[in-house]
Amino acid sequence: MKIYDIIDKKRRGYELSRDEIFFAINGFCSGDVADYQMSALAMAICINSMSEDETFFLTDAMLHSGDSINLSMLGELSVDKHSTGGVGDKTTLAVAPIVSSLGCKIAKMSGRGLGHTGGTIDKLEAISGFRTSLTNDEFFKQVNDIGVCVIGQSSDLVPADKKLYALRDVTATVESIPLIASSIMSKKLSSGAKNIVLDVKVGSGAFMKTESDARALADAMVKIGKRFKRNVRAIISNMDTPLGNAIGNSLEVWEAIELLKGNTHTELYEVCLALSSNMVSCALGIDINEAEKRCNNSISNGSALEKMKEWISYQGGDVSVIDESDTLLNAKYKKEIFAKSDGYVSKISALNVGRASMLLGAGRTKKDDIIDTYAGILLNCSVGDKIKSGEKIATLYSSSSELFDDCEKILLDAISICDTPPQKSKVIIDII
Amino acid sequence: MKIYDIIDKKRRGYELSRDEIFFAINGFCSGDVADYQMSALAMAICINSMSEDETFFLTDAMLHSGDSINLSMLGELSVDKHSTGGVGDKTTLAVAPIVSSLGCKIAKMSGRGLGHTGGTIDKLEAISGFRTSLTNDEFFKQVNDIGVCVIGQSSDLVPADKKLYALRDVTATVESIPLIASSIMSKKLSSGAKNIVLDVKVGSGAFMKTESDARALADAMVKIGKRFKRNVRAIISNMDTPLGNAIGNSLEVWEAIELLKGNTHTELYEVCLALSSNMVSCALGIDINEAEKRCNNSISNGSALEKMKEWISYQGGDVSVIDESDTLLNAKYKKEIFAKSDGYVSKISALNVGRASMLLGAGRTKKDDIIDTYAGILLNCSVGDKIKSGEKIATLYSSSSELFDDCEKILLDAISICDTPPQKSKVIIDII
Repeated sequence: MKIYDIIDKKRRGYELSRDEIFFAINGFCSGDVADYQMSALAMAICINSMSEDETFFLTDAMLHSGDSINLSMLGELSVDKHSTGGVGDKTTLAVAPIVSSLGCKIAKMSGRGLGHTGGTIDKLEAISGFRTSLTNDEFFKQVNDIGVCVIGQSSDLVPADKKLYALRDVTATVESIPLIASSIMSKKLSSGAKNIVLDVKVGSGAFMKTESDARALADAMVKIGKRFKRNVRAIISNMDTPLGNAIGNSLEVWEAIELLKGNTHTELYEVCLALSSNMVSCALGIDINEAEKRCNNSISNGSALEKMKEWISYQGGDVSVIDESDTLLNAKYKKEIFAKSDGYVSKISALNVGRASMLLGAGRTKKDDIIDTYAGILLNCSVGDKIKSGEKIATLYSSSSELFDDCEKILLDAISICDTPPQKSKVIIDII
Repeated sequence: MKIYDIIDKKRRGYELSRDEIFFAINGFCSGDVADYQMSALAMAICINSMSEDETFFLTDAMLHSGDSINLSMLGELSVDKHSTGGVGDKTTLAVAPIVSSLGCKIAKMSGRGLGHTGGTIDKLEAISGFRTSLTNDEFFKQVNDIGVCVIGQSSDLVPADKKLYALRDVTATVESIPLIASSIMSKKLSSGAKNIVLDVKVGSGAFMKTESDARALADAMVKIGKRFKRNVRAIISNMDTPLGNAIGNSLEVWEAIELLKGNTHTELYEVCLALSSNMVSCALGIDINEAEKRCNNSISNGSALEKMKEWISYQGGDVSVIDESDTLLNAKYKKEIFAKSDGYVSKISALNVGRASMLLGAGRTKKDDIIDTYAGILLNCSVGDKIKSGEKIATLYSSSSELFDDCEKILLDAISICDTPPQKSKVIIDII
């Protein structure tokens, strides 16, 4: 078997066999297949796509490139979630305590933020003392003891994906449903959970720009999961608008705590509820309505908040953030932003709010950039709100006031105001 | 401008601008664009193709990557030819003396053989003493003095093509009309000739397998040439069958000499005549029929053979090969091959004859392989010939008899014999 012939076959649009896909991925990991060959193959896949079988084989080949976590001791209770990334998406922070408070076991690995989208690990690290690197033994012990543990991604899991993603990232070969689906699913499968709920974001602030692409990705991932005998559900949710009012690491932890305190009933609540109840329904094998009831109860009776306290404490974090959550809003500089005209908020561009937040220091443009934990944006308005000129619509947070003027401009552009009430779009588009 | 965006644009199927193409090629030469980025771009071009404008810009960008030879002192008389490569294609050896004997100036750079196709430089080096590396001054002086000089390709011309071709060769991105057309034409344009005649081979032994591909390539190259204000014509010729009876370096020199002596009137003669008369017609600005008459005369009156003697002598070669051409058939081992049945020769597979010849030592599988100058195959039959079982149909030549049995098998398979006379296909399919 020669890599040349495999690339050539895909270039011509033919279907690759299991052996050919394993040969390419194994060779890429060992160095026998050069980067320039893999990028040519990735481009051929981007343009000519892959069948359901090929996507499954690719996922399997990547899965075989490294270790897998064995969560079989958790039986059917292990559950994981994944979001394709968006602006203001702090759902894991709320969902993990909700589902673990109901008996599910969430042993999760999360990523860091890049570009205009945030990452759960950066957010957790906004809690003073919170440890995101644990040994395997610590990880398993914590899940067994309290049912929830979230740590940074291990490089021992799916090294092929890590290497391939780095290459795709510099060769314009990221946008491919089979490549994205196999990348996400190989990581989720290697993490070992029996039940997986995926949040596929669609809209201007998401990676998937159209509903049809989001559906195709969700569909591909669910199919892969089923072939690996996991329970997989996918939620397709809107990401034209930031999710919730807080964007930025410590600000998002604050909002997640507020949600668990019962103080938030926005679209963020809706998405957290959809994710939690699907996770609980899968893992406990119960009806979705019953699962939703339990999740609502877990918030209203305070058990989710209690679980979050337990979780933060177990992982070394300062639990005082729960009762004194306003300490999370302690950036050195703040700037309030006021509406320039009367009207209705018709649109809040997730992409541009994400970019403004990144400029303030909340995100990275390069992998090595250092995050400003307290930087970000707190929105004081939502789509559909009637506002008056001069009314506060947002607050900027940062450890430097240098870019406040630039960010104000971006933010005022990002928040569109019109004369008539806009039609609100649904946040949960579908569940597959 | 970022290479990522350029790759991304071509991946999506959009047309690249002149600036974008120059940015990619210049960056690739300087090392700013990595191999893995260029191979991804090449794959996107392979699959999504390029417009006429893009192909022109690509050729221009490659042309700008190195030196060009200035042949303007030759006025309108400079003429070059190029063959896309085939089996038994020794046309340059005959055509160069024909056209230079008629007043055209042929200052040509040629390549070496690779795979089942041969290269002119290897063939010329079969003539004892023949120098294929000359200084620029020697090159120009010889063309001025005798009107003909053929040397090896200089690496100073079109380094971008050299680098890009090496990458395409290992990433299955060779097969692309715009990439092939710009590769060939950038080399031809940098060599400086005002008139260029292209021989686009089509068939099982050629790179282009279908007539429509060959026409598309010919068309693309003629269009590029015109935009650079050169007179370009393209001949589309058949390469299902080897061209002529000799395959192998010294054997092909022998056959070219036989042709100039007036001893060959096969399809090889037809192709040499088509090439020569188009070159002469272009360079002297005369009617094609008049040009053809002059070429025929040049052979029949011996002036082409005389010019070949002058050429070999000027370039340091042993001119005794002309009068004692049988010394070129002096391989250490020979094996005669006999027909196994009666019938008509219906097909001689150029690809398989080429492969057998390569096995005998006449070709290279890798760039560094050493050629066996005297190795090859002399066919004693042509398509359409009626033969009897036991009749000699070919002779194998090599400095080792080790692989004679294997090659005999390949050759007997390559020469198909059937009961009824086959329909002969035209060797010259079209002239564009």
